[in-house]
Amino acid sequence: MSAYDSLEKHFEEIYSLNHALNILGWDEAVIMAKQGGAARANALATLEKLRHERLTLPEVGDWLADALTQPPADPWQAANLKLMYKTHKKATAIPSSLAYELKEASIRAEQAWRQYRQDNNWADFCPLLEHSFSLILRKAAHYADTLGVSPYDACLDDFSPHLTQATLDPLFQQLKTALPPLITQIQEHQARHAQPASLPPLSPDAQKAIGTTLMTHIGFDFERGRLDESHHPFCGGVPTDVRLTTRYNTDEALTGLMGICHETGHACYEQHLPDTWHHQPVGEALGMAVHESQSLIIEMEACRSQEFAHFLSPLLQEQTPHQQITATGLFHAMTEVKPTLIRVNANEVHYPLHVILRYELEKSLLNGDLRITDLPAAWDDAMTQTIGLSTKGNDRDGVMQDVHWPAGLFGYFPAYTVGRLIAAQLYHAALQAHPDIPQHIAQGDFTALMNWLTKHVHQQASLTSMNELLHNSTGEPLNADYFLQHIRSRYLND
Amino acid sequence: MSAYDSLEKHFEEIYSLNHALNILGWDEAVIMAKQGGAARANALATLEKLRHERLTLPEVGDWLADALTQPPADPWQAANLKLMYKTHKKATAIPSSLAYELKEASIRAEQAWRQYRQDNNWADFCPLLEHSFSLILRKAAHYADTLGVSPYDACLDDFSPHLTQATLDPLFQQLKTALPPLITQIQEHQARHAQPASLPPLSPDAQKAIGTTLMTHIGFDFERGRLDESHHPFCGGVPTDVRLTTRYNTDEALTGLMGICHETGHACYEQHLPDTWHHQPVGEALGMAVHESQSLIIEMEACRSQEFAHFLSPLLQEQTPHQQITATGLFHAMTEVKPTLIRVNANEVHYPLHVILRYELEKSLLNGDLRITDLPAAWDDAMTQTIGLSTKGNDRDGVMQDVHWPAGLFGYFPAYTVGRLIAAQLYHAALQAHPDIPQHIAQGDFTALMNWLTKHVHQQASLTSMNELLHNSTGEPLNADYFLQHIRSRYLND
Repeated sequence: MSAYDSLEKHFEEIYSLNHALNILGWDEAVIMAKQGGAARANALATLEKLRHERLTLPEVGDWLADALTQPPADPWQAANLKLMYKTHKKATAIPSSLAYELKEASIRAEQAWRQYRQDNNWADFCPLLEHSFSLILRKAAHYADTLGVSPYDACLDDFSPHLTQATLDPLFQQLKTALPPLITQIQEHQARHAQPASLPPLSPDAQKAIGTTLMTHIGFDFERGRLDESHHPFCGGVPTDVRLTTRYNTDEALTGLMGICHETGHACYEQHLPDTWHHQPVGEALGMAVHESQSLIIEMEACRSQEFAHFLSPLLQEQTPHQQITATGLFHAMTEVKPTLIRVNANEVHYPLHVILRYELEKSLLNGDLRITDLPAAWDDAMTQTIGLSTKGNDRDGVMQDVHWPAGLFGYFPAYTVGRLIAAQLYHAALQAHPDIPQHIAQGDFTALMNWLTKHVHQQASLTSMNELLHNSTGEPLNADYFLQHIRSRYLND
Repeated sequence: MSAYDSLEKHFEEIYSLNHALNILGWDEAVIMAKQGGAARANALATLEKLRHERLTLPEVGDWLADALTQPPADPWQAANLKLMYKTHKKATAIPSSLAYELKEASIRAEQAWRQYRQDNNWADFCPLLEHSFSLILRKAAHYADTLGVSPYDACLDDFSPHLTQATLDPLFQQLKTALPPLITQIQEHQARHAQPASLPPLSPDAQKAIGTTLMTHIGFDFERGRLDESHHPFCGGVPTDVRLTTRYNTDEALTGLMGICHETGHACYEQHLPDTWHHQPVGEALGMAVHESQSLIIEMEACRSQEFAHFLSPLLQEQTPHQQITATGLFHAMTEVKPTLIRVNANEVHYPLHVILRYELEKSLLNGDLRITDLPAAWDDAMTQTIGLSTKGNDRDGVMQDVHWPAGLFGYFPAYTVGRLIAAQLYHAALQAHPDIPQHIAQGDFTALMNWLTKHVHQQASLTSMNELLHNSTGEPLNADYFLQHIRSRYLND
């Protein structure tokens, strides 16, 4: 067997551990019994350690050295080899014990967070976060040494390969400058023109029924996945069995429904990854920025559009016979630009400001300019400055609102806004190829859009870099222009 | 670190793989998407292989040799060491590749069985079963060599340690002789005296509501587990998160409810295993015969009693206001002795005959006297002879009715009847200690019975052998007398 073939076989085995980690992680958030947390954290951390041990076996290094002397001619195999090399390099940078500790600490912190957040109890949560952050710092330092980058760039790379502060700083600066005056303009415009429908209460069952209809229309295959509920909506599982979750608020149905649309975008990406490469690094989705682009193109570009409101309003109307719901009223409700404390409830115009706030705090934390204990105050300052709302005494809706930091995901947040910019670029390119996409969406027909995404993004998996993917699909590098153009066109043009 | 301590640490890690295998196995049967089967089978088989590799690492042999020269003084540690030794010895008897193949083949066969059974399609199912049985034969031959026993005894040992044909043959012969005339007597008696209530249809939701009430009364802790639905009722998960399942038939509510009582007996055993030993061999339940004794003491001794009927009938009455349900009518319905094709629906008097039929077929298969292709005919013959019903052309309710063979569980079935005998012995001993147990059960209070079981069985885990456990708790060796005495007393005494 060639060195490359040995590597493929070895990584196929490692992907069985990934499979277990993914399904057990989903189970932990959705199904697990209350008292099952400690044993689960231990099991997951042990699987993570076993995974790490297998990644760092001496023969893996030998096979890699051997295979790299004569890389495979097939572009998928060549790309796969590069990814194996990087995965191995990063794994060897840290000891197995740290892989174990990090996983266990972050699961325990996430489990504790569910209760502490509910109780608005930062004081008791802080030491847990400090502990897992100290492990993150250790990992980031190891990675930074190995990759020759700064610790925060090492964190970013974990979620969005090759994404760096050097790319993010100017883009985020552009948004930070452009958005506040746009928000003012839009709010004035909406005060004059918008008449958002107020939706009546809708039971979780009714929301779920509409949600599954939407999922089917968007393109979700229920033979390869399912919909459940969890504290924090997410998309997990494996490509042949994608598990997406949402949460239902009876008094505010739109959030749950748009959450389903969002996660369905993620899920379709996973379901459409090339079957033949499911168990290899090259067969994985291309990092979280591209992943978020797929959820956001579905949620923000397609589903919060005037056209989709035409499709959705009769579905809502059926459930609420005593109140009239027009497409225009629904569209206004789906595009209301109001400040909110909560990122996941934020409209798409404010949203990047929520992300930039987190990005700047993460940079300071990783650079050592900010301590975990000082986060609530720093958060309140930044929220007051950028969004105009204070979180003083309300850490629950402030620094404790997201699952990411409890779960050890430092460096993830920028993926949302980079993903949003990519979504705008991709949607523009898809419309160039198929100008009738919006008319199809008005009929609930996502086929043209989904086929375009499947071909240009999903089926590409990790064959290319994010920049190459963008170049191949849109002809342009990553930029904020299409996003800002979309904002002006959707919010200031009627 | 001492050799024994190294072993404990190593086995704790192995138990994380067990944790993953248990939860993923439950998920496969209850949650998994239709198209997720191949990837799941591959993942589970790989985890099984990893588990096998870790069990057979050379250092495990070294630690065992070292620790056995000076076994720990603590009885739990000493028992743990013995179990580690046996586990290692059995694991080293087979190659890792066989561990992988067996797991994958049996999961794939089980997945296929779900559909083939529904379609009564033996022809297409048979080759799958032949394949996984050929692997079972290979494993049994390896174990038989290593343990110095016959292949079928090696199979039995996998589920009920130290249980052999030498023990089973006379016990089963006694039952085979005693039961048929008893059945005739009971049926004549019931024809004259019994007036079983006919229960009206009950929705799955209503059954579930009653079922969870019963679980709580029996002693199930919902913070450490949950109730779901599956093709074949079972109890899975881990001690801190026990997952039990049932299936609901609207037209026949008793089966689902008694199924819940049965699985709750299993579940309480798991929930009450000693916390400190959860991640070691000695902390596990003492094989499937004892496990079945715990489900059967709850279902058969406690819940199909006259006293429990007093507790259950008002709960059913609430759900069915238009029809009167008396305790006596319900008791008669729960103890009707009628022949049936289906083991899981069989009454406790016929039940051992269903098991003995399978036991004899398994012996013939393992001895090479019977081929898998000849199973349907052999099954039909045996059913016609022992139960008086034919399964000709109805393999769905014949040889294909159980999940066990598809799932590769050859040697499991005797555990049901041995478990039933143990249940009768234990219940008799518990009543000696607490004669008022039946009166408590009439009030829905299982505390006295459950405390007795917890102390004498659950908390003992695998500290002793099954024979020692029986001796310590009942003062007698395994025998059929208490069971036969119970049958006469329950069915011929009113």
